[in-house]
Amino acid sequence: MSYQRIKTKQIRIGSKLVGGGAPITVQTMTKTDTRDADATISQIKELESIGCEIVRLAVPDQVAAESLREIKKNTSIPIVADIHFDYRLALTAIESGVDALRINPGNIGEQKRVQTLVGAAAERDIPIRIGVNMGSLDSNIEDKYGRTAQGLVESALSHVSLLERESYHNIVISVKATSVPVTIQAYRMLSEKVDYPLHLGVTEAGGLWVGTIKSSIGIGSLLADGIGDTIRVSLTGHPSEEIRVGFQILKSLGLKSGGIELISCPTCGRCQIDLFKLLNEVEQELPLTEEALQVAIMGCVVNGPGEAKDADLGIAGGKGCGILFKQGKLVKKVPEDKLLETLISEINQILEERKQAI
Amino acid sequence: MSYQRIKTKQIRIGSKLVGGGAPITVQTMTKTDTRDADATISQIKELESIGCEIVRLAVPDQVAAESLREIKKNTSIPIVADIHFDYRLALTAIESGVDALRINPGNIGEQKRVQTLVGAAAERDIPIRIGVNMGSLDSNIEDKYGRTAQGLVESALSHVSLLERESYHNIVISVKATSVPVTIQAYRMLSEKVDYPLHLGVTEAGGLWVGTIKSSIGIGSLLADGIGDTIRVSLTGHPSEEIRVGFQILKSLGLKSGGIELISCPTCGRCQIDLFKLLNEVEQELPLTEEALQVAIMGCVVNGPGEAKDADLGIAGGKGCGILFKQGKLVKKVPEDKLLETLISEINQILEERKQAI
Repeated sequence: MSYQRIKTKQIRIGSKLVGGGAPITVQTMTKTDTRDADATISQIKELESIGCEIVRLAVPDQVAAESLREIKKNTSIPIVADIHFDYRLALTAIESGVDALRINPGNIGEQKRVQTLVGAAAERDIPIRIGVNMGSLDSNIEDKYGRTAQGLVESALSHVSLLERESYHNIVISVKATSVPVTIQAYRMLSEKVDYPLHLGVTEAGGLWVGTIKSSIGIGSLLADGIGDTIRVSLTGHPSEEIRVGFQILKSLGLKSGGIELISCPTCGRCQIDLFKLLNEVEQELPLTEEALQVAIMGCVVNGPGEAKDADLGIAGGKGCGILFKQGKLVKKVPEDKLLETLISEINQILEERKQAI
Repeated sequence: MSYQRIKTKQIRIGSKLVGGGAPITVQTMTKTDTRDADATISQIKELESIGCEIVRLAVPDQVAAESLREIKKNTSIPIVADIHFDYRLALTAIESGVDALRINPGNIGEQKRVQTLVGAAAERDIPIRIGVNMGSLDSNIEDKYGRTAQGLVESALSHVSLLERESYHNIVISVKATSVPVTIQAYRMLSEKVDYPLHLGVTEAGGLWVGTIKSSIGIGSLLADGIGDTIRVSLTGHPSEEIRVGFQILKSLGLKSGGIELISCPTCGRCQIDLFKLLNEVEQELPLTEEALQVAIMGCVVNGPGEAKDADLGIAGGKGCGILFKQGKLVKKVPEDKLLETLISEINQILEERKQAI
């Protein structure tokens, strides 16, 4: 199935294109103190190594804004400076070489400041993300619309209008709430009103487990409707967890290819092998690859072979054994205690064959 | 935000109503051998204790079908017998007292058998779930439509027509695929064509982590559109994990109330307390309750107080301390090492006050 992606304006954040049909990017936020350049550089490099495409840094003060220069010099993925209220921090961040800003122009005071900010951003072709959160909704908006999806959207539009007044259109928008339904509704409304690229996220989603579920529903259902150009999963945990979940959401929707996809059945009374154990062991031993490979691990022969037929490789459990399928063809019957070893070796063989074929 | 639920026909599975505006039920499948009544009874009781509302059992042979009588006698939640191909197993299951069947009438042979089956089901007012899976799609459907969402829907409709020919309308339908987008598309198409209640699920979703993400997106986005009357999360893991994830999906969408909802922020450079540690400790010590309570654990004062205002109770981190909010009002500043204890004690106090108020 292919998506009808909603077409947005395309902007550029450093080396990454966002919107206008560009691949959806996965981003996160460092959890180090930005003033500590070494710690922040080291975290960014770690995130980059697992595929993080854009990283955002909190810039609470002038020291942090100046620290960005050192951080930029020592890292290569695009950096977004996250700034609240103080437009001078934004100016310093721009001078320090950041690739984008997250700042809400309605919060920085008189329009002259917006003008100055836009001038500096325009000079370096730096996009501005307007990031509205239910937790910090402007009081005049809250009074008028309540803490609703419409409130989020109206707030975003009012910030947008301040930039548009300066003829600035290099904009990304987010409208995040803690509530998943409110988040979904807000982005749907916003998507009908603007063609700026949208940054998706459920804010303060929770710990690893709850946050993963809430983000998957919120971000996933919007993406399934073709809405969203870049995503950030918010979890109370290490930012690498946010990246892993973000990529898995994209992969689950067929919006990111590559890597090995494991398909397994929930098992039922028909299952005669220890499928949980096998699956967990396979997950641990899977080789890292950019190749797309679908591997099915099924408990029984009722749905097993049907699924395995779709997969590059599959196992359907029998009594103390498994039937191995490879690219749609029955290969052999394997004793249960050899299933792990056989599967990993078959995966490596397919990857090797593909490499040879290039 | 309230949902526009798509109105379906209401049916009854034992003590549970499904469809027609009834609360969405969470179900799972036992992973014991149904022929082993004791093991199966013990697993059903365990699932019931954590809130499982309907449970399905694989019935691969006559011994399993007869075992259902003993299992029914010793358990109280509604039981669905899952049967493939053999309508005699279905007849035995009905005699054994099950509350519903999952069987595809197109797979049991001549229409006379369907007639017999429907006669027995009608006599005891037992609904039949038609469960179409991409992994076992009929070959004539696959030839005509391919392995597509439309194929799933056409297959389901053809099974439905066999029951309708016998004037049987006590039907639930599922159309599951391993692919999340195909699953979403299939249920959307089906929902426009029938008004029977729909059982949602992504089949063979994967292990605990991948399966949770895929199920959250697939089931969650359909529920967010008002589609779905009962849900089953498929995970390669213990069925209790499926129930936990199922309830969390409903809770995340505001479709199930009760219990304590923790809201926390992802933390950033502004955070000056160890929020991960605090959150994980709070998650471990949370009292079990049917009361709905929203507790916010926020790293800083930027979004913190805004979020905490919505919550019954909230903490916004400061430097080595936290600011406690209770029902929108600032209560006190608490040293970091007393935050856990204070929060749990405040939660218990609110629960106690509510109990007094009844």
